Amino acid sequence: MNTPSGRPMDAHLSGGNQRSLQGFAPQHFAWEQRGAVGLITLNRPERKNPLTFDSYAELRDLFRTLGLVDEVRAIVVQGAGGNFCSGGDVHEIIGPLTQMSMPDLLAFTRMTGDLVKAIRACPQPVISSIDGVCAGAGAIIAMASDLRVGTARSKTAFLFTRVGLAGCDMGACSILPRIIGQGRASDLLYSGRSLGGEEALAWGFLNRLVEPEAVLESSVQWAQEIAAGPSFGHAMTKKMLHQEWAMGVDEAIESEAQAQAICMMTQDFHRAYHAFVAKQRPEFQGD
Amino acid sequence: MNTPSGRPMDAHLSGGNQRSLQGFAPQHFAWEQRGAVGLITLNRPERKNPLTFDSYAELRDLFRTLGLVDEVRAIVVQGAGGNFCSGGDVHEIIGPLTQMSMPDLLAFTRMTGDLVKAIRACPQPVISSIDGVCAGAGAIIAMASDLRVGTARSKTAFLFTRVGLAGCDMGACSILPRIIGQGRASDLLYSGRSLGGEEALAWGFLNRLVEPEAVLESSVQWAQEIAAGPSFGHAMTKKMLHQEWAMGVDEAIESEAQAQAICMMTQDFHRAYHAFVAKQRPEFQGD
Amino acid sequence: MNTPSGRPMDAHLSGGNQRSLQGFAPQHFAWEQRGAVGLITLNRPERKNPLTFDSYAELRDLFRTLGLVDEVRAIVVQGAGGNFCSGGDVHEIIGPLTQMSMPDLLAFTRMTGDLVKAIRACPQPVISSIDGVCAGAGAIIAMASDLRVGTARSKTAFLFTRVGLAGCDMGACSILPRIIGQGRASDLLYSGRSLGGEEALAWGFLNRLVEPEAVLESSVQWAQEIAAGPSFGHAMTKKMLHQEWAMGVDEAIESEAQAQAICMMTQDFHRAYHAFVAKQRPEFQGD
Repeated sequence: MNTPSGRPMDAHLSGGNQRSLQGFAPQHFAWEQRGAVGLITLNRPERKNPLTFDSYAELRDLFRTLGLVDEVRAIVVQGAGGNFCSGGDVHEIIGPLTQMSMPDLLAFTRMTGDLVKAIRACPQPVISSIDGVCAGAGAIIAMASDLRVGTARSKTAFLFTRVGLAGCDMGACSILPRIIGQGRASDLLYSGRSLGGEEALAWGFLNRLVEPEAVLESSVQWAQEIAAGPSFGHAMTKKMLHQEWAMGVDEAIESEAQAQAICMMTQDFHRAYHAFVAKQRPEFQGD
Repeated sequence: MNTPSGRPMDAHLSGGNQRSLQGFAPQHFAWEQRGAVGLITLNRPERKNPLTFDSYAELRDLFRTLGLVDEVRAIVVQGAGGNFCSGGDVHEIIGPLTQMSMPDLLAFTRMTGDLVKAIRACPQPVISSIDGVCAGAGAIIAMASDLRVGTARSKTAFLFTRVGLAGCDMGACSILPRIIGQGRASDLLYSGRSLGGEEALAWGFLNRLVEPEAVLESSVQWAQEIAAGPSFGHAMTKKMLHQEWAMGVDEAIESEAQAQAICMMTQDFHRAYHAFVAKQRPEFQGD
Repeated sequence: MNTPSGRPMDAHLSGGNQRSLQGFAPQHFAWEQRGAVGLITLNRPERKNPLTFDSYAELRDLFRTLGLVDEVRAIVVQGAGGNFCSGGDVHEIIGPLTQMSMPDLLAFTRMTGDLVKAIRACPQPVISSIDGVCAGAGAIIAMASDLRVGTARSKTAFLFTRVGLAGCDMGACSILPRIIGQGRASDLLYSGRSLGGEEALAWGFLNRLVEPEAVLESSVQWAQEIAAGPSFGHAMTKKMLHQEWAMGVDEAIESEAQAQAICMMTQDFHRAYHAFVAKQRPEFQGD
């Protein structure tokens, strides 16, 4: 894993196939580990945390690396200063895009898509903690997460149409309809309008609605609960939610029979059984 | 494009690959252009606007032609006289069907299906403006639209089961579950019951609920807002919502990377950027 | 069809390809016919109706046989004693699983998956009548049903994660997101938490919410209404809801054109037409 500047990120990762993110200091966002929970903070609050070419790439690299990081078992993404993310920066991204050749444009749209692929492919469940502005690529990061905690004042807008583009950005035409339904997704993608927190909760876009001062704490606590669960099983759940997206029902059932049989070989399954028999709570370890 | 009577519709369309619908006077429904919005009115109000063999065919032909009509950028479908559409006419359609051979039946069901295919394939977003009865093929037209504005007294009924048939008509078993979920779709398709406006809004079938006297105006205004947007981008959004229906997530993301890179080559994208820099509203032109 | 004990179930079924379930007395649950409605009661109320290896197999065999049973036109599944089903029994299932080889584990997960496949493949619409605990494999049976009637005190929990396993059990990662959306399904599958009746109704998991004393009656009455409908058509609706799961929209429309043309050849379609003309209610017979 390299940062966009070419500095090998492996320098501060442990050897072998397993990596550690202890001491990882990304250049374009903040990273913090709270126990087994990794907290990503988009931190240019004066601009409502926009994305740049560099931050896209660094986020993509981090999510790709997470598949090798066993010590992190759930992820929270938030923005600093009361906003989640304002999306691709108009000056730093949209301006240059208007000057690019088609190969460079495709390289850019593929890089942004690779961020979503990496979020879906990493084994850790990802929770977006959403307050304030959540727009464009910010809305996509929220959508690509497994779970979403938000506030009433959060405003999620798939506003690509407002900059003259299509709503089909980074998987939105595939993923958003599966979260909120085809009709409501069409509304958001054609209009680019803001979805408020109450409506987002009613539609199943947000899983939980909390006060602004509680949104990070609530997200991290939920992530810690998940991280304390059977992480091998959770990773399989996430993999199968991805894998079965366009599979027939019967084929999905066979795939799950295989996946769950694998999970029945784990120690966590045995731990749960023995804890139950002993009338104790199981302590999962992820193996 | 021919009307069912064989009269070549091209007679009043301009030459080349581009067509105009100025002066288009369909035989089995009304057509009106309000700026860049095309308004289709099913207009046999004394029978609650049923469909006939001829009106099915003429609607299908119109939606197929719309792919060549650049001057129309959004479509509204309504019914005259306080009802949307009562579906296939019992005397003019169901009676004859009971006498048909299998090849003729299949030709009929394919023609009705071709109407839905044409609604989904035309580049313009389609808004159904629904008041009163919206039943059978009428419910299908509403379902096949991109967006739905309705009234509290609207009654949407997939009532094929009431005439001894299956709920799988014109794509209902594929499309309806993606709008309202598999369980609620099963309820409607097995029972044929009417879905009222309030419930339809809560389920995401309706996007907006308005007073009967405002339903057309509200629909046309929404269509005008969409028509004023980047119509090349909107057409791509609609295409991808269709295209990605049964695609895996990763494949959908790659498809969107390509589609959005294409859209970044449009003038509308440049117009939006320059307008933003100049602190103005962009004026999209669809190229 | 054999019961798990090897006793040929055909012994009390009529000859030929058609079977009767009159007098069918399963060993591991109760079976009752109320007119054309078959009522399955999971009946170990002292343990909240858990499933065992034997009851899984016997349920699977019954649902497979139902394809040959014309006299039964809708199914209701309930649990005895105020609970639906507590899922796989910890002592009778989970304990033994911790001792099994991989081939035996896969044989088990495939057997459980085969129950869901059989529920989806039988031509009769299936209604789950849910009160109290509805957990694990019980939640799966409810999810795999076509329709769900529940109570406010019902608690549906996909709690596989609580026993150290993945949420991908018996098709849950494919089916549950299509009923309640991808985000809400992720919440339930990662957390294993209980979904209460009110929330389940708001999410479209439950179709109807009724008082505990009315849940069975309401379910059976709904099943009787369905059974009085055009059962050939209903079976086609169910088949196509399954068949079109991962099909493109255009392909689904062609499939429905064929399926509905078949249904137009049925006597029930003709009955409905003639009843309409005579201003009578049609009496459907399923042929």
